[in-house]
Amino acid sequence: TSTSGKVKPPPVTRYNLNNVTITHNPLDNRENILILTPMARFYQAYWDNLLKLTYSHELITLGFILPKNKEGNTATTELQKQIAKTQQYGPEKDRFKSIIILRQDFDPPLPSQDEGERHKMQNQKIRRAAMAKARNSLLFTTLGPSTSWVLWLDADIIETPPTLIQDLAFHDKPLIAPNCFQRYYNTERKVMDERAYDFNNWQDSPTAQELASKMGYDDILLEGYADMATYRALMAYMYEEGADIHHEVPLDGVGGTALLVKADVHRDGAMFPPFAFYHLIETEGFAKMAKRLGWQAAGLPNYKVYHYNE
Amino acid sequence: TSTSGKVKPPPVTRYNLNNVTITHNPLDNRENILILTPMARFYQAYWDNLLKLTYSHELITLGFILPKNKEGNTATTELQKQIAKTQQYGPEKDRFKSIIILRQDFDPPLPSQDEGERHKMQNQKIRRAAMAKARNSLLFTTLGPSTSWVLWLDADIIETPPTLIQDLAFHDKPLIAPNCFQRYYNTERKVMDERAYDFNNWQDSPTAQELASKMGYDDILLEGYADMATYRALMAYMYEEGADIHHEVPLDGVGGTALLVKADVHRDGAMFPPFAFYHLIETEGFAKMAKRLGWQAAGLPNYKVYHYNE
Ligand SMILES: Nc1nc2c(ncn2[C@@H]2O[C@H](COP(=O)(O)OP(=O)(O)O)[C@@H](O)[C@H]2O)c(=O)[nH]1
Ligand SMILES: Nc1nc2c(ncn2[C@@H]2O[C@H](COP(=O)(O)OP(=O)(O)O)[C@@H](O)[C@H]2O)c(=O)[nH]1
Ligand SMILES: [Mn+2]
Ligand SMILES: [Mn+2]
Repeated sequence: TSTSGKVKPPPVTRYNLNNVTITHNPLDNRENILILTPMARFYQAYWDNLLKLTYSHELITLGFILPKNKEGNTATTELQKQIAKTQQYGPEKDRFKSIIILRQDFDPPLPSQDEGERHKMQNQKIRRAAMAKARNSLLFTTLGPSTSWVLWLDADIIETPPTLIQDLAFHDKPLIAPNCFQRYYNTERKVMDERAYDFNNWQDSPTAQELASKMGYDDILLEGYADMATYRALMAYMYEEGADIHHEVPLDGVGGTALLVKADVHRDGAMFPPFAFYHLIETEGFAKMAKRLGWQAAGLPNYKVYHYNE
Repeated sequence: TSTSGKVKPPPVTRYNLNNVTITHNPLDNRENILILTPMARFYQAYWDNLLKLTYSHELITLGFILPKNKEGNTATTELQKQIAKTQQYGPEKDRFKSIIILRQDFDPPLPSQDEGERHKMQNQKIRRAAMAKARNSLLFTTLGPSTSWVLWLDADIIETPPTLIQDLAFHDKPLIAPNCFQRYYNTERKVMDERAYDFNNWQDSPTAQELASKMGYDDILLEGYADMATYRALMAYMYEEGADIHHEVPLDGVGGTALLVKADVHRDGAMFPPFAFYHLIETEGFAKMAKRLGWQAAGLPNYKVYHYNE
């Protein structure tokens, strides 16, 4: 009000006339990337890997969503400590354009975040619906008019090539996933080894279609469970040692561990269904929804990123 | 880069810790409202009505999306002229917090925007899918961390009570629609009269459910067409002269002419399906999706807003 007699400056009026490009060479075209990470735990290796990404940090906005529980509070504190270090005291080239941290209002449905507990089949539907809502909250709240790309990157992805963004964008696909592996100690061979981790990147199969057709409207198919054999072609198993890292395959389901998405795919309305969508949920449902909107997912079986091993 | 030798100030780091409230008394709690309007044509009466809203303009952000065609260009020019007038030269109390204008990248599917052509049944699916995408683009791009409420308001809504936002929010419902009417000249009675306009606010019927159950997966039900009688209870016909304007009814389908939505409904993932969702599309599909997410729509049959009459 002008009771003080002073005239406030007029509020900023912003006209965005969609001059935002989305190209296979985003760095040269100075395209803005939004990296979105749902985070239940903070891993230093995740942050260190993020800092090493060679895509111009001044074009990168980071968005996080953390659950409002004890674990989430701890992770938020640790994350904020690293952010302060990078943004205030770190070398200029490391600093990101901006950072948004959201706290999840609803309680996470499972009390424990242990890998065994998380993966129990009967827990999956509730857990993945909650994850889908967290991803949607993060997405709807942070996507802006100048965003060209969204990189979904889980908080436990601790190792990627530093050129991850450029390499994935180069394929110019609406949504594209690298292959997510996990390093582990092979007790038999007594050496460090690696194994496939993300089974949500797959190509559909007649068996899965058949299973789905017999399900109740609200039931979901899950991947990676022996008692629900889908015979889908899993990208996790398409890896070929020494083969071209840019070899590309079409995908029908995607995971969220690492996934580059053109912002327009989300803008059309593609989100992470927290309910059964063609008997798929969360990231897998997202790939299906994108497809319904005319956007085909792709994967790079030989391009590896690594998941933390608990 | 620091080639100049100068150290840039560290980029802004924003922590949003969800201290945003969504209450039935948003004005006292200084809650931010985002008014979203897809706009094919600009009507001066729409803008004038907007200016008369008594909700604090400094808490209101406006978001527009206009098609990239000749009609859209004209509307954009007219809109920008009015914005400049209000934001730069108008009284302080009229000025809005911020304004975002987006242009739709894809071509609108129908060459003509005439009411007759628009409403032809076979044109509805493509048209409403395009409208759904426009709404999603607008929503995904403008919703921010501090948004409490989203008011969907069509560009041809030219008359509402000035307390529209407060009145609707008072009901504290996840999504709530007033009743959209249209003034016209009654040639028989030779007087100005009014009639129901928005038939997308409805309660479901067994007949509609039955029709849907026999449809192909991608087929949609439409409301307001004689050759597809749904026997749904239309809010348009629930209006009672002189009755309580705050009388509330539950709804299964909603229209987009005027609709107040708690931002958390959208954040959970509820958007405007541009494809058949339970045989519903766009705003009607949105109500169904919100319901799938646990949010029940409501309507106020006796609370009227008015649509332009071409
Ligand atoms: N905001 C939020 N993030 C979560 C929650 N649960 C897990 N996450 C994060 O979401 C991502 C995927 O979850 P995770 O448990 O690693 O899934 P998995 O590796 O597929 O078993 C990781 O980045 C987690 O840190 C939750 O309840 N809320
Ligand atoms: N961005 C955009 N807005 C549109 C388009 N077509 C209509 N609109 C706007 O969307 C709203 C609903 O469309 P309208 O044709 O009035 O629908 P009806 O009143 O239900 O027949 C109005 O605000 C229109 O100005 C379009 O192709 N693009
Ligand atoms: Mn994980
Ligand atoms: Mn209209």
